[in-house]
Amino acid sequence: MTAAPLFQRVALIGFGLIGGSIARAARAQGLAGEIVATAHSAKTRARVAELGIADRVVETNAEAADGADLVILSIPVGVCGAVAQEIASHLKPGAIISDVGSVKGAVVRDMAPHLPAGVHFVPAHPVAGTEHSGPDSGFAELFINRWCILTPPEGTDPAAVDRLRAFWTAIGARVETMTPEHHDLVLAITSHLPHLIAYTIVGTAEELGDVTSSEVMKFSAGGFRDFTRIAASDPTMWRDVFLTNKDAVLEMLGTFNEDLSKLTRAMRRGDGEALFEHFTRTRAIRRGIVEIGQNSAAPDFGRLQTSATKKNS
Amino acid sequence: MTAAPLFQRVALIGFGLIGGSIARAARAQGLAGEIVATAHSAKTRARVAELGIADRVVETNAEAADGADLVILSIPVGVCGAVAQEIASHLKPGAIISDVGSVKGAVVRDMAPHLPAGVHFVPAHPVAGTEHSGPDSGFAELFINRWCILTPPEGTDPAAVDRLRAFWTAIGARVETMTPEHHDLVLAITSHLPHLIAYTIVGTAEELGDVTSSEVMKFSAGGFRDFTRIAASDPTMWRDVFLTNKDAVLEMLGTFNEDLSKLTRAMRRGDGEALFEHFTRTRAIRRGIVEIGQNSAAPDFGRLQTSATKKNS
Repeated sequence: MTAAPLFQRVALIGFGLIGGSIARAARAQGLAGEIVATAHSAKTRARVAELGIADRVVETNAEAADGADLVILSIPVGVCGAVAQEIASHLKPGAIISDVGSVKGAVVRDMAPHLPAGVHFVPAHPVAGTEHSGPDSGFAELFINRWCILTPPEGTDPAAVDRLRAFWTAIGARVETMTPEHHDLVLAITSHLPHLIAYTIVGTAEELGDVTSSEVMKFSAGGFRDFTRIAASDPTMWRDVFLTNKDAVLEMLGTFNEDLSKLTRAMRRGDGEALFEHFTRTRAIRRGIVEIGQNSAAPDFGRLQTSATKKNS
Repeated sequence: MTAAPLFQRVALIGFGLIGGSIARAARAQGLAGEIVATAHSAKTRARVAELGIADRVVETNAEAADGADLVILSIPVGVCGAVAQEIASHLKPGAIISDVGSVKGAVVRDMAPHLPAGVHFVPAHPVAGTEHSGPDSGFAELFINRWCILTPPEGTDPAAVDRLRAFWTAIGARVETMTPEHHDLVLAITSHLPHLIAYTIVGTAEELGDVTSSEVMKFSAGGFRDFTRIAASDPTMWRDVFLTNKDAVLEMLGTFNEDLSKLTRAMRRGDGEALFEHFTRTRAIRRGIVEIGQNSAAPDFGRLQTSATKKNS
């Protein structure tokens, strides 16, 4: 690539789908002089070393953070506070510390109190993923044309925000900033509630008396299988999302339940006109998503554009 | 292809995604001596003639059915009864009459009384589709490796069932038979309820006060967009599904609502263990679907296997 890397040393704490994809993408774009990685489990650390994606694999979070110019936590949101506390005294003055959590209010609340003055805290959330997890699941193209939302607390140095923006832009993402509170509301409807509902219906299908699981799987092409993909996402990550963004999810769930009752009532009363009107309206939303390039009309859900196939074929 | 076609004359009434795909697949496999097509709207008929997919395009349903050895209605389930009545006196003795409706109890109830003795009524439901509709949306590979469920009423000539089975098998489908009642229960959970829920949440997302539609679309890659695809399905078809399979859908919806309440309670109480246990269980169901080949782990939802891209890229 061109000139000097954006960051001399990048520390990646956590090496699942997201951490592993950041490592691969940062290396592909030459954004880091050195990538230091660590992970909670010895097995994952060994696998990262074996894959050779990081320049150095270290045993502890503190060691990883030590001397890094950019530290990114790619770990479940429920443990971000504890890890921030663990690494706080090892952070270099002027370092940027960030994360990739799907919830931002709780992350800011849990991490900020531990961070020393002189380091720049810029929380981030790349809105991208697959249903796969673990160190082998990442790929360099995951973030291409996906949004990464930054939620810098008030008073954050704009230069630090710009540097992190440059990093995410360089690995293909489009970057937006908003408050943690607004982020959590937006994601509650675009991600958390869809996951809760998919997790529910897949569970429902499994325990029916009069339809067997094998029938459910066999005939899943009629719609159900689209739900199973997101209901196969990482259980630890999603447990933490629901525990930490409870209020916003409950708020969206309230509206969803009202709307479901309305459609149920139309069905019960045989009100075909109300059903038809609703279904026509939702079709237009799909068109909007395809138009703005967050999906294609192709049957791959726009994923091949980012050559995700590499990983999963 | 080999030897004589399976049917001398095949009449296709209705030419949307399914009718159009049957025409293309039957022609590709040489299954019909002649394909006669018709459709409700003059515009669709003109387009079918232009596309040259059928051997003859006729104006009326009666004309299409006249002298056909196999008649397939690919029309919304709500109008199957009326069309059966319309064509009944034109059906050739020994002809097989079938449909492709997503609901079978109502179709049997509405069609059977009109059909003359001496014709074989073998209702069918190919569990396959995309969110696209209209005469241009079909493609010959749509049914490959998908299930087609036959629900012959008691007393149907087994030879007629076998001939229809041979037709669906030849265009790539795997065929299963069951009663209309059981079909409607199975599809209520694998297809109808998922659609109802997707239609609901996409509608919910559109009318929120504090999150704009444009934000919903922008950040839809976090899960929401997977729901928009099925909420973009044909409104007329789906209105009729919910009006005609009301009881089974309401039954499944009852169980779904209980399960959603359970997960909501776990979230509200901060019961991480219950959430984790549930999410781990649903992940296993996904694996089951991938294993039996009704989807792949690839990001295209197994659709490229059937080269659906042809249509949509």
